[in-house]
Amino acid sequence: MKNYLLLATAFVLLICSKQATAQTDPASFTGAQPKLDHYDALYVLNSGDDKKIHGIIRNMNNALEDPRLKGKLHIELIVFGDGVAVYMKSGSYEQALKDLQAKGVVLAECSNTVRERKIDKNDLFDFISYVPSANGEIILRQYEGWAEVHP
Amino acid sequence: MKNYLLLATAFVLLICSKQATAQTDPASFTGAQPKLDHYDALYVLNSGDDKKIHGIIRNMNNALEDPRLKGKLHIELIVFGDGVAVYMKSGSYEQALKDLQAKGVVLAECSNTVRERKIDKNDLFDFISYVPSANGEIILRQYEGWAEVHP
Amino acid sequence: MKNYLLLATAFVLLICSKQATAQTDPASFTGAQPKLDHYDALYVLNSGDDKKIHGIIRNMNNALEDPRLKGKLHIELIVFGDGVAVYMKSGSYEQALKDLQAKGVVLAECSNTVRERKIDKNDLFDFISYVPSANGEIILRQYEGWAEVHP
Repeated sequence: MKNYLLLATAFVLLICSKQATAQTDPASFTGAQPKLDHYDALYVLNSGDDKKIHGIIRNMNNALEDPRLKGKLHIELIVFGDGVAVYMKSGSYEQALKDLQAKGVVLAECSNTVRERKIDKNDLFDFISYVPSANGEIILRQYEGWAEVHP
Repeated sequence: MKNYLLLATAFVLLICSKQATAQTDPASFTGAQPKLDHYDALYVLNSGDDKKIHGIIRNMNNALEDPRLKGKLHIELIVFGDGVAVYMKSGSYEQALKDLQAKGVVLAECSNTVRERKIDKNDLFDFISYVPSANGEIILRQYEGWAEVHP
Repeated sequence: MKNYLLLATAFVLLICSKQATAQTDPASFTGAQPKLDHYDALYVLNSGDDKKIHGIIRNMNNALEDPRLKGKLHIELIVFGDGVAVYMKSGSYEQALKDLQAKGVVLAECSNTVRERKIDKNDLFDFISYVPSANGEIILRQYEGWAEVHP
């Protein structure tokens, strides 16, 4: 009986110690790519430059098509500062944004930018959403475990 | 006695297996925003462009005021390369930096930049601190669980 | 005998509960710099500007020499978009790249960029490797616990 108890306890301790190793040593992940069935990524845009905007749209589509992520990736695009150009009705990105939204991409704009720049929300697409601050969003999403991409 | 032992062991194994699930699946955070009472963010500046500098100062203030983070956010600003302009006594950022410092923001400069550019530390504000390398800081802070913001 | 069993179980539960705390509270990392013996960092380059390229090469070398990381840091450089210039045989970065590779740096290029720009792989150094998409790489590496640096 005593031997059985020792064996059981040793087994449990072994399991726990393996977990402790994995947890306190991020490097232990290296090489062994975790097979997850869901990934979240926050894409950050704060430039109004057309080349940058075309680039980030292409980047999001490429990530969604990456064979390692396909069907498992959820993206939020957070826009602030000069990046607000992408959401302007007067701009040329309506179709590209709707295509992304159809793929599940959440389109978010920073409320601080809108207020500081006295932008009329009627000038922005009505299918976007708003967050209190882009910077708060960037910090909170990382704490929630999201990947962040700022091309 | 034997049943009691089996029950206890099963209970411990159950707890351990639940932990293992939470640990290997970052996606389990999704949607459920953790209610933390403290957040750390490293802001990164490596540009001497005035628009970029004004931007990152505004960004840090906005993050500190975000209702989701207010009173819970600690920021360190790490400066390297051309960004060192923000710490120059000859520049115009002294008051903005002191205001940030009064809000708890740590103002750090990369020692490599100072050495490589042969900058006289007397030309930089004396209320800043130094780290061995900005790049080491960026890597280490992420490993400590900090969010990173590079606007 | 029974006391011994209770003691062993309590001990195991204590270990497990300590792990649970560390895991659900990212803020618990704050201040206490974990002493790890291995760090992974993904450096991101998507600019063909010579100043940016020289900068990221210097940044990687500085991180490898940071006394807090020296001998413990593994780096992968992921290149996409205009950044592909760094891998061009017609460019001037061959020696700097070989020096980095000798320090263990993995040199990776985005296959999407190569395909979209119809680049002949024979025009790129043959000592680099390819990943399906740089954006997928950026997301996956963060999920694997790597630090990300985009100078």
